[in-house]
Amino acid sequence: MKNQLISGKLDHKAAAMSHSTDGQINILNEDVCLPVVVIKEQILDNNIRWMQDYTNACQVSLAPHGKTTMTPAIFKKQLQAGAWGIGVGTAYQAKIAIESGITNIIMANQLIGKANMLFVSKLKQQSNTKIFCCVDNKGNALQLSTHFAAQEQTMNVLLELGIEGGRCGCRSESEAIELAKYIHSLPGLKLSGVEFYEGVIHSQNELTDIDKINGFLTRVINTSNNLIKLNLFPDSEEVILTGAGSVWYDLVCQQMQQANLGQNIRYVIRPGCYVTQDKGVYQQSHNALKNRSELACHIQGDLASAMELCAFVQSMPEPDLAIIGFGKRDAAFDEGLPQPIAHYRHGQAMPFVTGTMKTQNIMDQHAMLHYSKDVDLQVGDILIFGTSHPCITFDKWRQLYFVDGQYNVLEAVETYF
Amino acid sequence: MKNQLISGKLDHKAAAMSHSTDGQINILNEDVCLPVVVIKEQILDNNIRWMQDYTNACQVSLAPHGKTTMTPAIFKKQLQAGAWGIGVGTAYQAKIAIESGITNIIMANQLIGKANMLFVSKLKQQSNTKIFCCVDNKGNALQLSTHFAAQEQTMNVLLELGIEGGRCGCRSESEAIELAKYIHSLPGLKLSGVEFYEGVIHSQNELTDIDKINGFLTRVINTSNNLIKLNLFPDSEEVILTGAGSVWYDLVCQQMQQANLGQNIRYVIRPGCYVTQDKGVYQQSHNALKNRSELACHIQGDLASAMELCAFVQSMPEPDLAIIGFGKRDAAFDEGLPQPIAHYRHGQAMPFVTGTMKTQNIMDQHAMLHYSKDVDLQVGDILIFGTSHPCITFDKWRQLYFVDGQYNVLEAVETYF
Repeated sequence: MKNQLISGKLDHKAAAMSHSTDGQINILNEDVCLPVVVIKEQILDNNIRWMQDYTNACQVSLAPHGKTTMTPAIFKKQLQAGAWGIGVGTAYQAKIAIESGITNIIMANQLIGKANMLFVSKLKQQSNTKIFCCVDNKGNALQLSTHFAAQEQTMNVLLELGIEGGRCGCRSESEAIELAKYIHSLPGLKLSGVEFYEGVIHSQNELTDIDKINGFLTRVINTSNNLIKLNLFPDSEEVILTGAGSVWYDLVCQQMQQANLGQNIRYVIRPGCYVTQDKGVYQQSHNALKNRSELACHIQGDLASAMELCAFVQSMPEPDLAIIGFGKRDAAFDEGLPQPIAHYRHGQAMPFVTGTMKTQNIMDQHAMLHYSKDVDLQVGDILIFGTSHPCITFDKWRQLYFVDGQYNVLEAVETYF
Repeated sequence: MKNQLISGKLDHKAAAMSHSTDGQINILNEDVCLPVVVIKEQILDNNIRWMQDYTNACQVSLAPHGKTTMTPAIFKKQLQAGAWGIGVGTAYQAKIAIESGITNIIMANQLIGKANMLFVSKLKQQSNTKIFCCVDNKGNALQLSTHFAAQEQTMNVLLELGIEGGRCGCRSESEAIELAKYIHSLPGLKLSGVEFYEGVIHSQNELTDIDKINGFLTRVINTSNNLIKLNLFPDSEEVILTGAGSVWYDLVCQQMQQANLGQNIRYVIRPGCYVTQDKGVYQQSHNALKNRSELACHIQGDLASAMELCAFVQSMPEPDLAIIGFGKRDAAFDEGLPQPIAHYRHGQAMPFVTGTMKTQNIMDQHAMLHYSKDVDLQVGDILIFGTSHPCITFDKWRQLYFVDGQYNVLEAVETYF
C-alpha cells in the first residue's frame, strides 16, 4: 500500500511525498501535500458498526446512503458489517455501488431521460444487482415502462410519497393509489414498495418537526397498508418500505416497528452522514436524537467525527489574523465553516484551547482564521479542522487517506463523484 | 472523438449513451446522462480572444488564473491565443499546467510544507517551465531557501503585498523591504518580482472600492520602485509585477501602464473567471467594468456566459413547484443559484419568458423551482440554467462537454481538480 501511494504520488492534489526510510507516510510529518482530508479509520469502523447495531436492534434493514461518500472502500465496509444494500441518488452512483459488490440498490430518486434509463438498462444487463428507483408521476412511469419493456427488462419501482412544501413524492393518498394502479398496469414496471424522505422537514422547532414527521409517517404507513390491501404489489416478492436520512431515523424506526404491515415487508432505512458524522450539523442532530432515543444511548461506543481537514498556517499578515491554506475547493462551507480542533508544530501537539481560534471567512483556496493573543501560532504549523456536512467535503476529493490516531496513513482510497 | 465518448460512456456521471446512427451526441436529444455542465465552445473562444485583445491593448501580459477551470484543453486555448503563462493556487495545479505545455507559472500563493516543496522540486527537475511562488514571511522564506538549496535548485519568488483586512501579503513598505532584503540574502531563492491581489476588496460601494484599490496599487508601485532602486532584483532577468483578478483588472492595467518602472519589468494580470464568464456575480462585475472602461466597450465581441447547466424536470408535486434534477453536487450555489435561461421538450425549444421560473432552493441532488401558471412544464422537460461563480461549478465535474449552439457535443474534456 505504501509503495502504491508513493508511485502514484503526483497524481492528485494530496500527493504523498514521503522522504522517510521506513516508508511510513504521516500527515503531521508533512509527508503529504496539504490541505488534505483524512478519515480516522477506527472511528469510521465504529460508526459503521454502531448504526448496524442500531438497525439490528430495531429489526429494520440498512441501506446507507452511498451518495454521502461515493467511496467503494467505505461501501464494502458497510456491506461487511451487515448492510442490506446501498442508497444512491443517480444511475451513475448505482454503477459505482454495483462495482463495489452491493446486491440491493435503492435509487432514492426518479429515473428521468433516455440516457439515464439506458444507463440503468446496461447495469441490469451486466449484473444481478437488484435496482429500485422511485416514481411519483404517470408520465415518467409510462416512459420508464416503454423503455424497459422495449429492452425486455422489468424495472423495480417504489412509489414515492412526499410532504407539502417538501421535495418529490405524491402529496395525497388518492394520487398515490391512482399512480400505483397505473404502474401496476404497465408491462415494463414492477411496483416493489413505497419510498419516502422525511429529512426535508427540518425547522428550528424540534417538537413541531416531530409532530409533522409522525403525521407524515402515519400517512405513509396507512397508504402502504391500503396498497397492500388492493393487491398492488406482487405476491411472490417482499415489499420494500424505505425512508429515513441521518436526522430522524429514530422516529422512522419506531414507526416501522409498530407498523404491522405483514410478514412480507422489508423495512429499510437510508442514513448516510452517520458514517463519518461531523463536528457541525450532524453532531447537533445526533445529540438531539440521543435525547429522544434511549436505544441510541445504549448502543456501545457512540458516533463520532471521523473526517478531519489538515491544513497549514500559510500567512500571518496581521496580529490576530492567520490565513490558512484551504478553501471552498477543499471542504464543505454551506452548513458552517471548518473549525480548528488541534494544533501541531514539527509533528508535536501544541497546547490547544477550544474557542481561541475561529475560522471566520472562506475563499476558494484560503480561509481566514482569527485567534487570541495567547495562541502561539507560526507559519508552517498544521491545524486540524472538524467539518460540517460531510457529503460536500467528500465531493471535493478524488482520493482520501484513512489514518490511525497518530495520523499515519493506513490506506489511500478513491472517491467516484 | 465521438467514438471516444461512447467507449468511455459509463465512466463518469455525465455518461454519453447515444442511440443515434450518425454518432452525433446531442444534449437536447437526451444522449447524455443529465444533469450535465456544458461549455459553449464558440463563446469560450470569443472570451479567450477578448481578454487577450484587452491585455494586448494595455501592453500587459496575461496569465489567466488556471484554478478557475483546471482544464488543460482550456489552458491550451489560452496559451494559443497568446497568454504568457498560467496562474495557479497550489503545487498540484502547477503540475497540471506544466503538463498542458505552459512555460511560465505564477503560483499566486505561498508554498508551505515539506511535501509541497518537494513536489515543486520534482516539477522543476522534470521540466523547463519557470515557476514563481509568493513569499510574505521570513520563516517561510528561510524554509524555502533551505529546501531548494539542499536540492541544488533556486526558487523564483515574488514578494506578496497585501492590504489591511485582506488576505496574505506584507501590509507595510518597511516590512516588505526588510523581507526583500532577507530573501536577497538567502542562497536558495531568487527575488523575481512583486505580487498582489486586489480582488479581496469588494464591498457594496464601488466608488469606495475604487479609491481603496487605487491607493493599494499606488503603494504596490511605490514599493516596487523602491525595491528596484535598492537593487534587490537580479539585473539579468526581467522583473515581474503581477496582480488582478476578474473584477478590477481595468484599474490594475491602467496603473500598470502609468507605472514607469523601467524597461525590465513584465506586467502580468491574472483574471480567471472571464473565460466562461457567468450569469451571476461575474456578469455584474463585467457590466460595472464596462461602465468604467472605454477600452472594454471597444474590444470586438463581448464576454458572455459560456457555461450552462442542463437538467431534467424530475417531479412536479405541487401546482407551482417543480423539483429539478441537479443540486449542490453539480453547480456552484455560493454566489446565487443557477437560474433557468431556456426550456426544451423532445429536443424542441419551448416558449421561455424570463422571470416566469425561479430556482429558490437547493439540496445535494435536487433544486426547487417555482414557476408561474402560464408555464407549460412537464416531467422530463430539459431546462438550461445559467450559473454564478464558475470556479466552483468546474470543481464539480471530472469531465465537461464542449458543445455548439445546438448542443451537439464537440468534445469531452477532462478537469483535474
